[in-house]
Amino acid sequence: MARKAAIIGGGVIGGGWTARFVLNGWDVSVFDPGPEAERNVAIMLANARLAVPALSDVPMPPEGKVTFAATMAEALDGAEYVQESVSERLDLKHKVYAQMQQSNPDILIGSSTSGFKAVDLQKGAVNPANIIVAHPFTPVYLLPLCEISASAANTPEAIKRTVDIVTDIGMFPLVMRKEIDAFIGSRFLEAVWREALWMLKDGVATTEEIDDAIRMSFGLRWAQMGLFENYRIAGGEAGMRHFMAQFGPCLKWPWTKLTDVPEFNDELVDLVAGQSDAQSGHMHIRDLERLRDQNLVGILRSLKDRNVGAGKVLREHDARRAAAFHAGELAGTPLQMAELQVLPSWIDYNGHMTESRYLFCASEVADAFLRLIGADMDYVAGGHSYYTAESLVRHVGEAKLGDRLTGTLQVIRADEKRLHHFITLKRGDAVVATVEQMCLHVDMKAGKACPAAPEVLARLLPIAAAHEGLPAPEGLGRFVGQRRA
Amino acid sequence: MARKAAIIGGGVIGGGWTARFVLNGWDVSVFDPGPEAERNVAIMLANARLAVPALSDVPMPPEGKVTFAATMAEALDGAEYVQESVSERLDLKHKVYAQMQQSNPDILIGSSTSGFKAVDLQKGAVNPANIIVAHPFTPVYLLPLCEISASAANTPEAIKRTVDIVTDIGMFPLVMRKEIDAFIGSRFLEAVWREALWMLKDGVATTEEIDDAIRMSFGLRWAQMGLFENYRIAGGEAGMRHFMAQFGPCLKWPWTKLTDVPEFNDELVDLVAGQSDAQSGHMHIRDLERLRDQNLVGILRSLKDRNVGAGKVLREHDARRAAAFHAGELAGTPLQMAELQVLPSWIDYNGHMTESRYLFCASEVADAFLRLIGADMDYVAGGHSYYTAESLVRHVGEAKLGDRLTGTLQVIRADEKRLHHFITLKRGDAVVATVEQMCLHVDMKAGKACPAAPEVLARLLPIAAAHEGLPAPEGLGRFVGQRRA
Repeated sequence: MARKAAIIGGGVIGGGWTARFVLNGWDVSVFDPGPEAERNVAIMLANARLAVPALSDVPMPPEGKVTFAATMAEALDGAEYVQESVSERLDLKHKVYAQMQQSNPDILIGSSTSGFKAVDLQKGAVNPANIIVAHPFTPVYLLPLCEISASAANTPEAIKRTVDIVTDIGMFPLVMRKEIDAFIGSRFLEAVWREALWMLKDGVATTEEIDDAIRMSFGLRWAQMGLFENYRIAGGEAGMRHFMAQFGPCLKWPWTKLTDVPEFNDELVDLVAGQSDAQSGHMHIRDLERLRDQNLVGILRSLKDRNVGAGKVLREHDARRAAAFHAGELAGTPLQMAELQVLPSWIDYNGHMTESRYLFCASEVADAFLRLIGADMDYVAGGHSYYTAESLVRHVGEAKLGDRLTGTLQVIRADEKRLHHFITLKRGDAVVATVEQMCLHVDMKAGKACPAAPEVLARLLPIAAAHEGLPAPEGLGRFVGQRRA
Repeated sequence: MARKAAIIGGGVIGGGWTARFVLNGWDVSVFDPGPEAERNVAIMLANARLAVPALSDVPMPPEGKVTFAATMAEALDGAEYVQESVSERLDLKHKVYAQMQQSNPDILIGSSTSGFKAVDLQKGAVNPANIIVAHPFTPVYLLPLCEISASAANTPEAIKRTVDIVTDIGMFPLVMRKEIDAFIGSRFLEAVWREALWMLKDGVATTEEIDDAIRMSFGLRWAQMGLFENYRIAGGEAGMRHFMAQFGPCLKWPWTKLTDVPEFNDELVDLVAGQSDAQSGHMHIRDLERLRDQNLVGILRSLKDRNVGAGKVLREHDARRAAAFHAGELAGTPLQMAELQVLPSWIDYNGHMTESRYLFCASEVADAFLRLIGADMDYVAGGHSYYTAESLVRHVGEAKLGDRLTGTLQVIRADEKRLHHFITLKRGDAVVATVEQMCLHVDMKAGKACPAAPEVLARLLPIAAAHEGLPAPEGLGRFVGQRRA
């Protein structure tokens, strides 16, 4: 049975949490008496469904169910965790916690607050130990950071349970060492926001120029390493001390206006809002959201390729899910070795999966088969591998964005050195492509074919024998075009 | 003849500029009497050679030559531009400008200063009009931003020439509206740096926790959109005004410590340097640099796929280079349609180009051929296209990281509806793979084959006729493995 979370407040943040929980297989009950909640949650869920599966390299779990509760008590019923995402008003939050703890004093409550400390949130509560800060960043379904901030009233168990729950839905929990207002991320955002408002007010730069300055320079650095690791590199071989010696004294220079804040008045709002309209007003907010999400998916995928930062979090999440996935049993039928989803970057200008991705999918199938027979990464590290000599790709149907494809492999013939197999990619029952391949087992150092290790053959040959009786697949032995005269 | 730039100062910044100029085809003369300059420049150039070609989708220009000058006058000889990257001391900069303008008062001088205004740099100069701020960000060879800041003494021509030169080497020039210390980017970096030092000093977070907080959250947002466009989205349908109303009042809250600065003393330096060692000390600075660059290449490539932000700058740079590239003439030989470089993400765990990338390269070749015969994006938008029905891939050799491959296409047979071609991928004279393909011309709406447009056939059929007399390429008409009994 799916685990259940209650989400209180159905705005951009509550909707984002809902999407993250649901796509990670949790059921969610949303409580928000406002008229916009159902629509907000539906928008966030639609955005997340377009983006989140594109980050996964293991099959997604079955999606959880979303329900909208009529009362707080109904939302909490059967839930093991509540994420509170109501407006940033302390009195409102206190009222909401009192209602929750009246229904269930033992339920763990995480707050999405971006400013209040746990000790403030807990004031007057029946059970302060179960109220904790779990602060996410928009878009909640894509960005991994969750700042967890506890007071002395919180038990180590409450902290650990919060960490475990946000980890289960693919986040990166950062437990604060001390309680401070606004935690870490928002403190930096606040600093940059003040400086940016001064620049606008003083006519030094427009919103668009400021955005360009950020995304063409240190924004690219900060997406992968943070502040200090980049400065360490800037310090060169002499390291962090050298960097500090060079730039430390600047702290006393009068560069910044941060010792003062600009007056927040209508004039300032008009200036910012007007420039922002000029910059981005040609795009609907929904289109901007999807553009942002596509960019984030692209950046996150490239970090995942390198197992760095947020990409490492994604890989670890995959590994946990893969461990929970049951591969099914071998039998005298073609083996289903992979389940793949067609990602945005796989699509060409015809709107179809680009042709090289068919072979990419087949490689995923073949790699999974090679792992199954023991020709895995360790085997390759030992100096042996199967190399593909020839592939014939038949394009029988079309795969489109979001399609889920299954890949099966049938061994046609195998001996000590050779593996001839036939891979079929299907969407449901419809064949979209077949790939027939001849692979040679090689000694990588010598650069020539050699017999596979006995333990590999001990796994491969029985499968080959089991497949010998299978009917020849449609398209086996094809060549391209017609024979030339 | 190549254009020439002089680089004064051979540190991380001067070396980065050198690499950017040289890889964009400029000759560079470096002047730096220090003992480390040649080594620094060599390191930056080696890093850049690994990263920059991976961002280009058009052939790179021939690399410029780097020389080390014995005197300032020798460095400036024949140069049309000087980039000054000496230490951040105003007296030193003034001395250097005086020397330059003694050799050549008319040469345009851009300064890499991250803090001084042009009006300060120009003080006491023979020709203040030719001294301007051109401020880059590390790594200079990868990050596009160049902040250009001029004083009233600079002519519009000097500003325009600086813009043109940095654009020619692929940068994004941002011309400041007003002179302020530290321009835009470094003002934000300074604000975040101060806030981060407070957190460290107060024991709220370590260097590693701060870096994680940034790269797991807003760093990912800022790599693609900046501050304001992200907040616009956060404001939802109600837009920027709503966001301002919600978060504007926070300006008055006592969240930040930015109204004061931490004391810069040995204790603070020890704290930062010690934590940084614990975080990153296991990696050599050169390895950190390359990791950062690989990450940047991945992020930049994903932005380029989407034509957003820094990715748009890369595309525009490609377009300028493609326009300057001479495609060569058609003849009765296989057509050379593409030149490709094997990128880091194309490599599998065997250390070779992953098999699907061979087909990807062939697709690039075929797409270039289709554009040549007029079956381009507009043609596809009109509802017609060539679909690939079958591909036979023969792996004859191996492609490795950084290899430059050329792709040729020979038409085997073509008629109104069919195009049968044979693509050969070579590294130098060595064949690495061949791909034989059957393509069908289709009416995309009807979903079935139909004759190609007369203007496409008018280009395709003469090439087919010219290729009819060519010898059949090795491997034509292959099928996979041996016939089954």
